Amino acid sequence: MRSASASPAPDEQNTALLKDFATLSAFGATPGGGVDRQAATAADGEQRAWLHRWLTGHGFEVHYDGVGNQFGLFTFTPGAPYVLSGSHLDSQPLGGRYDGAYGVLAAAHAAHRAVERWRASGASPRYNVAVVNWFNEEGSRFKPSMMGSAVFAGKLPAETALATTDPAGTSVRAALREIGTIGDYAGPDLAAYAEIHIEQGRELENAGTTIGLVGSTWAARKYQVIVRGEQSHTGSTIMTDRRDALFGASLLVVAVRELAERSAAVPLHTSVSEMYIEPNSPVVVAREVRMHVDLRSPDEAFLEDAAKELAESIPGIEERAAVDIEVVQTHGWGVAPFPRAGVDLAAEVADELGLRHRTMMTIAGHDSVNMKDVTPAVMLFVPSADGISHNEGEFTPDHDICAGTDLLTEVIHRLMSGALESQR
Amino acid sequence: MRSASASPAPDEQNTALLKDFATLSAFGATPGGGVDRQAATAADGEQRAWLHRWLTGHGFEVHYDGVGNQFGLFTFTPGAPYVLSGSHLDSQPLGGRYDGAYGVLAAAHAAHRAVERWRASGASPRYNVAVVNWFNEEGSRFKPSMMGSAVFAGKLPAETALATTDPAGTSVRAALREIGTIGDYAGPDLAAYAEIHIEQGRELENAGTTIGLVGSTWAARKYQVIVRGEQSHTGSTIMTDRRDALFGASLLVVAVRELAERSAAVPLHTSVSEMYIEPNSPVVVAREVRMHVDLRSPDEAFLEDAAKELAESIPGIEERAAVDIEVVQTHGWGVAPFPRAGVDLAAEVADELGLRHRTMMTIAGHDSVNMKDVTPAVMLFVPSADGISHNEGEFTPDHDICAGTDLLTEVIHRLMSGALESQR
Repeated sequence: MRSASASPAPDEQNTALLKDFATLSAFGATPGGGVDRQAATAADGEQRAWLHRWLTGHGFEVHYDGVGNQFGLFTFTPGAPYVLSGSHLDSQPLGGRYDGAYGVLAAAHAAHRAVERWRASGASPRYNVAVVNWFNEEGSRFKPSMMGSAVFAGKLPAETALATTDPAGTSVRAALREIGTIGDYAGPDLAAYAEIHIEQGRELENAGTTIGLVGSTWAARKYQVIVRGEQSHTGSTIMTDRRDALFGASLLVVAVRELAERSAAVPLHTSVSEMYIEPNSPVVVAREVRMHVDLRSPDEAFLEDAAKELAESIPGIEERAAVDIEVVQTHGWGVAPFPRAGVDLAAEVADELGLRHRTMMTIAGHDSVNMKDVTPAVMLFVPSADGISHNEGEFTPDHDICAGTDLLTEVIHRLMSGALESQR
Repeated sequence: MRSASASPAPDEQNTALLKDFATLSAFGATPGGGVDRQAATAADGEQRAWLHRWLTGHGFEVHYDGVGNQFGLFTFTPGAPYVLSGSHLDSQPLGGRYDGAYGVLAAAHAAHRAVERWRASGASPRYNVAVVNWFNEEGSRFKPSMMGSAVFAGKLPAETALATTDPAGTSVRAALREIGTIGDYAGPDLAAYAEIHIEQGRELENAGTTIGLVGSTWAARKYQVIVRGEQSHTGSTIMTDRRDALFGASLLVVAVRELAERSAAVPLHTSVSEMYIEPNSPVVVAREVRMHVDLRSPDEAFLEDAAKELAESIPGIEERAAVDIEVVQTHGWGVAPFPRAGVDLAAEVADELGLRHRTMMTIAGHDSVNMKDVTPAVMLFVPSADGISHNEGEFTPDHDICAGTDLLTEVIHRLMSGALESQR
């Protein structure tokens, strides 16, 4: 654990922020201190309704686009573009309170504070401001992850997203209609995008640093794998006759892990965390396993080599388990930079606020990874205690929550003045 | 495939048998030619209602005991014990038409034919006759397998069985009430038990033999294993921080398979075919995997050694995957003989009918494995094409279906005369 430095009591604005964060954390709250509010579930619907009321109560106009992205607009100058800030309120099953939710609430408070400052000054900003809660960033119920921002950024057709079904067969379209947060808003014209998120790693904590300035992404590749065997009796089928899909899948899980274990020079994160097994009976050899493989590295060429090595291991697994394995890459991104000018802007603000900062890469995907390709984007991190995330025990201390929001407020304020307009 | 020998057209009785088998195969029929009628599902309810009508239509009196075992009684002498014959109508998900269902239908037809013969002769048998459809032999929806016969044989408390829940949380009690086949019948007093079943292996087919006479069981051990890790982000969590329950489970699947691969001298069948993964999300390292391990061998001491070897491999897996593994043996049986006199009786009948036979072991568990401990039991096999079972492609040729039923008829007739009474 990072030792908590003595920090002053929060001011009035940050007291309101922390109070709202406690309210937000009650939606889908779990006994273990986390939340369970997967995309377009009832709990997601409730928190969206709460955010809707918060935004209208603070003078924002709320709109929903065709894939459930929730926007709150504050318009100083009709027709002018918007500085957009936000993240996602949806969570993993038994996820933490901070992942995504902090970024949406910090954006709402920061945008509100910026609006108040502009109003108090009597001046008019160059750009309007808007808050966003992206639909289905987590991708646990509906795949792929970062769905709402991908549609907004033109990387995923809205129709494809809407037709996607969860394991129970419910489509995104039906689930969004169920919670009532789907509309026909086309989305705002953008001047810039800013997002703040918990780090979900240990780098800031280990360095005793409050703010991470994201300079680029790790590369990632995601695969859907289907292992096909044949159903037979677990007791009586002789071993050499078996075509065991779960044995084949298990060999692949081990091979995926060994890729990372062999990688000493360059970091490589590999995982299989999801399997659907058919028929999943204690006395029937599995006929099919569908699984999801995730590979990530800060080095694109190294990731390419790892993917090749994995592909080369498949025939041996097929032979040993007498199965057929189909691998389809479903999703991925390269090592991609965020604009240097955005990192510099945030660093300058952090210095002025007396916040220690460092430039770093993001390993996890974020909505900003989609957004940086359509508008100048700034991505900020605050620390995660012990690097724990996608876990009920996720934690970020209040003083970091407040410091991050103070920073985001100032960044949004400067973006509204046109700070990154040369990058558009 | 065994080459089909030229066989005569079935007689009137066997034509009726084959017609009824076709009717029975339509309950829960799947597009792939199999059936899906797990215990106490709607399809199981429908076939039970059909059997109920068949039995009453042929003069049997139908009763249900407290765990859903379905009995059809034909009483010549009130107060006299019964020769009981049957098997189970429930199937695996996407199972075959023959597994269990053949044994119940053959028993119904054989008992009816025996009744007709006794009636035609004018003599009264020493014992009455009864047919049984045991509840939940398969154990895919509710564990353990062979549930109904285990309760009948006093090996499993009825209350434990009734409180067992399926993965959706429905109890056996609730499911049986739903399909309406639960009663308070105490069950018949028994003189003997006879069961016929498909082999689910290749031994008869390879030997070109029609009838298997089961002399004893393979030993089996079944374990419930829980692998406990910790939920974390699949992307950002550094590899050495991960406590990946699915990686631990996969290492165990491979270790279980390797037990069998290393076993050259003595057959050992090992499998893992069922896992429940939490939270089973593509971007969350699994916190828990619950799995089922099945070990079987014809040699008890060898099975004991294999179980020890498996136990010894656990600490290394726990260390490598940073998980905790809990192993509980839930179920098992030793190498246990069926009475020699029953094998001899069936061999004598087979010889008289001109049916080739061999004495063999059963690898799969059957209701007769429970029943042999409470009454003299005879267990018979007919061939399975290619040894395929627990698969929609399960197949036994009509002439074997008929030959087995002819044999069972004669065995039941002789048991009703008191053939095994010295074994009681």
